[in-house]
Amino acid sequence: MLHQFLPTHYHHALGPYAPVLTVRPGDSIATTTVDARGFDQRREQVCPRGNPMTGPFFVETAEPGDTLVVRLDRIVPSRSYGWCGSSVAPNVVDPVYVRELPEAPLAEWNVDAVAGTAKLIGPPSRLQDLTIPIEPMLGCFGVAPPRKQAISTATSAEHGGNMDYRGFVAGTTVYFPVFEPGALFFLGDGHAAQGCGEIVGSGIEISMDVQVTLDVLKGHAIGWPRGENAEHIFTVGNARPLDQCVQHATTEMLRWLQQDYGLDPLGANLLLAQCVRYDLGNVFDPAFTMVCRLAKRWLPAA
Amino acid sequence: MLHQFLPTHYHHALGPYAPVLTVRPGDSIATTTVDARGFDQRREQVCPRGNPMTGPFFVETAEPGDTLVVRLDRIVPSRSYGWCGSSVAPNVVDPVYVRELPEAPLAEWNVDAVAGTAKLIGPPSRLQDLTIPIEPMLGCFGVAPPRKQAISTATSAEHGGNMDYRGFVAGTTVYFPVFEPGALFFLGDGHAAQGCGEIVGSGIEISMDVQVTLDVLKGHAIGWPRGENAEHIFTVGNARPLDQCVQHATTEMLRWLQQDYGLDPLGANLLLAQCVRYDLGNVFDPAFTMVCRLAKRWLPAA
Amino acid sequence: MLHQFLPTHYHHALGPYAPVLTVRPGDSIATTTVDARGFDQRREQVCPRGNPMTGPFFVETAEPGDTLVVRLDRIVPSRSYGWCGSSVAPNVVDPVYVRELPEAPLAEWNVDAVAGTAKLIGPPSRLQDLTIPIEPMLGCFGVAPPRKQAISTATSAEHGGNMDYRGFVAGTTVYFPVFEPGALFFLGDGHAAQGCGEIVGSGIEISMDVQVTLDVLKGHAIGWPRGENAEHIFTVGNARPLDQCVQHATTEMLRWLQQDYGLDPLGANLLLAQCVRYDLGNVFDPAFTMVCRLAKRWLPAA
Amino acid sequence: MLHQFLPTHYHHALGPYAPVLTVRPGDSIATTTVDARGFDQRREQVCPRGNPMTGPFFVETAEPGDTLVVRLDRIVPSRSYGWCGSSVAPNVVDPVYVRELPEAPLAEWNVDAVAGTAKLIGPPSRLQDLTIPIEPMLGCFGVAPPRKQAISTATSAEHGGNMDYRGFVAGTTVYFPVFEPGALFFLGDGHAAQGCGEIVGSGIEISMDVQVTLDVLKGHAIGWPRGENAEHIFTVGNARPLDQCVQHATTEMLRWLQQDYGLDPLGANLLLAQCVRYDLGNVFDPAFTMVCRLAKRWLPAA
Repeated sequence: MLHQFLPTHYHHALGPYAPVLTVRPGDSIATTTVDARGFDQRREQVCPRGNPMTGPFFVETAEPGDTLVVRLDRIVPSRSYGWCGSSVAPNVVDPVYVRELPEAPLAEWNVDAVAGTAKLIGPPSRLQDLTIPIEPMLGCFGVAPPRKQAISTATSAEHGGNMDYRGFVAGTTVYFPVFEPGALFFLGDGHAAQGCGEIVGSGIEISMDVQVTLDVLKGHAIGWPRGENAEHIFTVGNARPLDQCVQHATTEMLRWLQQDYGLDPLGANLLLAQCVRYDLGNVFDPAFTMVCRLAKRWLPAA
Repeated sequence: MLHQFLPTHYHHALGPYAPVLTVRPGDSIATTTVDARGFDQRREQVCPRGNPMTGPFFVETAEPGDTLVVRLDRIVPSRSYGWCGSSVAPNVVDPVYVRELPEAPLAEWNVDAVAGTAKLIGPPSRLQDLTIPIEPMLGCFGVAPPRKQAISTATSAEHGGNMDYRGFVAGTTVYFPVFEPGALFFLGDGHAAQGCGEIVGSGIEISMDVQVTLDVLKGHAIGWPRGENAEHIFTVGNARPLDQCVQHATTEMLRWLQQDYGLDPLGANLLLAQCVRYDLGNVFDPAFTMVCRLAKRWLPAA
Repeated sequence: MLHQFLPTHYHHALGPYAPVLTVRPGDSIATTTVDARGFDQRREQVCPRGNPMTGPFFVETAEPGDTLVVRLDRIVPSRSYGWCGSSVAPNVVDPVYVRELPEAPLAEWNVDAVAGTAKLIGPPSRLQDLTIPIEPMLGCFGVAPPRKQAISTATSAEHGGNMDYRGFVAGTTVYFPVFEPGALFFLGDGHAAQGCGEIVGSGIEISMDVQVTLDVLKGHAIGWPRGENAEHIFTVGNARPLDQCVQHATTEMLRWLQQDYGLDPLGANLLLAQCVRYDLGNVFDPAFTMVCRLAKRWLPAA
Repeated sequence: MLHQFLPTHYHHALGPYAPVLTVRPGDSIATTTVDARGFDQRREQVCPRGNPMTGPFFVETAEPGDTLVVRLDRIVPSRSYGWCGSSVAPNVVDPVYVRELPEAPLAEWNVDAVAGTAKLIGPPSRLQDLTIPIEPMLGCFGVAPPRKQAISTATSAEHGGNMDYRGFVAGTTVYFPVFEPGALFFLGDGHAAQGCGEIVGSGIEISMDVQVTLDVLKGHAIGWPRGENAEHIFTVGNARPLDQCVQHATTEMLRWLQQDYGLDPLGANLLLAQCVRYDLGNVFDPAFTMVCRLAKRWLPAA
């Protein structure tokens, strides 16, 4: 079943809040998200800034210890105006270089969802023209955290949150551990495009039309967000420093390979040894993100 | 001019050692490297283990403050036997997971340089068959460090060293800052293939036939290793934690864009904002490695 | 005014929860805390484990942007049975050393609050007798966090939380930024004694009788917890890695010296240069803690 | 035997250099050190800046696998002029705060070794008068590193080096692993006083008269520098981030307690649990330093 849902309020933390809609496993939801500063498709501010979330959606049957399955069906910019930071974040450069970072207004982009391009409009610099392909993604999404916590959309942890991984595009399926009855799924912070690391503190921020399909894996517990697309499976570690993200993501991948792909510890280690890839998610937030990725072609036959 | 050089001794640190050969800028060197444990193409141990280096090569005219240009012309395994670690390194998994890592002998691979494949031979596990394409690369290479230091080939810094970046394949050009007269170029630690991060502490370790072409950019100083291939330019940060690698590499890229590509600070920041990519080099050594990468298609016209 | 408060329920996160008591600025509260696993002075479990908090207390007039003043008047163990972990946490030793850590049941201590001692009872080891002086402290306390978050008592941030700093003993005054009306003050996780870093994941955990006096500094905003005792002022940074804790705490101290002690930037920097001290709080939780400390004797006369 | 040694040249790295003097185990050496910028007791520059080292001293019988014992007998400033940085280092504050750090000339101090005081002379700030007690210490000292490395005096590792720990004062005995025949002991970088962390990149830098007594523990191998004074034993971890320093130092302490004090793993862990202390050494260099410390009163009777 496909639900059409238009949000009337937004959350700035992921927590055990009252659901806005209850769906059945397998249902789809078509909804909208505002940009990171709370502006909608008309460029009107409908809520305070700070990665406002649409949701939460309650998924029937989901209980703590299960896994929520989120298929990203469609992520399409709902307006043409995008913006991003114009300076690399101070924590991403050498401390002595901070004084050399420019101080400029937000950069503005003209996003053409039909042509699939984003064109940099300003502020003026020697860069002049820059037009890049869009790759619409969700920067921040996930479920209610454990222990009845409510965690700011500025950061991320086991429950997901502000991971800013370029792989969260339409066609990707994401798995989250369930900590609350109904899972309580939130989404927002759409980016028309984004460099690795979200090093200016933002992608090309824009409002989105989003469709997701939600499902539940009963009695299947995971430790960190996982995902897959046509070619890869991947695990997501959210922490600081990046070294710890690598530890979380790698451990989760080793567990996955043994849990679902029939490998023994040695087999799982040998497989990762020469086939693993890592991607950088967010390197700007309180918690950073690293992704451990493995091509499906190397997975053992079922 | 092409020099043929057969090493008779090896170094286990990069330092201000006596050169084994002096070449002119623009010259090429065809030489050999032993594997990380000192075994050559006949599988005979010719020196102690620990990333033994061929070299150093003295490049005429190179002086501190210049840049050494290293074109990786050819990197080809010189035998069929490769090996790698069979367990993810304890520092790459969650501390509580260390006890679950397998303890097994080295894994062995059969490398077919003609077919371009590496086949896992053992130890036995549920993984069974695994055959992957080879992508021969150099794990450890670079120049004599600053301040007359001699730095172990187990680690890396501004001078290069044990970076274990999958991008260091034939066809790539690498730039190193010059700290000693003649630059003193070293190379070794060939991998037939390697996962990101070298998370088992080794790629598929193998002896190599290598050809490089060396050149000098006079009066052109850089801070960290840089590189380029047909599609990308990149900078390399070596440090710990990974966060600091990101800082070094990003700062070096911002400097490069302004130094050589005519961008102002704002233009350089805006360009990286949505176009930057990061790759993980080594996450096992005392110093880790992250690479900041940018597609050439986004660079301003000369 | 002195309020006597006996808790009937406990919280496992610091958040915008309904207050259990409202007090006036300057009022004192005498109350009790259970140990980290929810056991009270009778050794009966009255709530689930995980640093259960007494509170929150609503302090009249406190508004976001103010500072809450918490004077720790009295912290006294309310029973004789204490316990702690018996193995250093895996993240506190070299990754390769994890396999050598002992796996043993919790250690038990006999605490004599009158004599001021704690005696190790077991498990048996070659250590045999160990009796140490107690220094009763609060491991976890603070206020409701910003952005309506609810943050687990397993960790810490700007609002305080599980900082496990040995300096939080009776006689110390602690300052917290106020993020919610009434500040909403929580306390718990008493330790009869604790090594630096809480490296076994616990101090000598015990239920406590606690008295605090709460006050409000109107219109006085701070960024991180601050404190003072007869001899020192200090600031607290909670984050990961420890490097970032140092950054937070040092920045907060530089701000304090300029905000309240009349120093210019240069004077504040010169004062810290040779007089600063750092202490280690928690190095076990998701967020670690470092304290930046300065002797009052070096402060400029008012 | 007491050797008087006046240096005629200095080293800017610790490495396998020709010894300037050979001594017997148990011998003492009275010598001099220049300040971190190469200025001697007459304020004349006698060598380039960068923590110039006096030495190395060859200690007969010392072989790789032994331990070098260094008793710091006497460390006394040899002039009255001291200097230090006047701004906290950019890496020690929050990245966004870097722009608010002052940019000022070096601070100057008048050091009175007889009175035991250092008085801040300038640059002028609102701080005005500041006179503190001196606690003369060595910032950088140690032995030739492993693998024939030569490691800059700007940093530190297993061999010691630039640790900048306030505990390295007269009366302390320090232990270093021996990696080269004769150990090759270096010393320099005296500080009349120093805040924790050397957060302005310098203590009160000054030339020193130093006397040390050197000895050898044959067949006694250690992993990291250790030390002791009348009240404590301690271990030193040099790395980055500080988390890794804590790991190195704690692991070394656990090993020491089992190696020399007759404890089993459980006893060693239980002892550290509530009795351990940590101190911050350098938080400015490429490698940072943390010290793990334990009061001798808690050690088992021999």
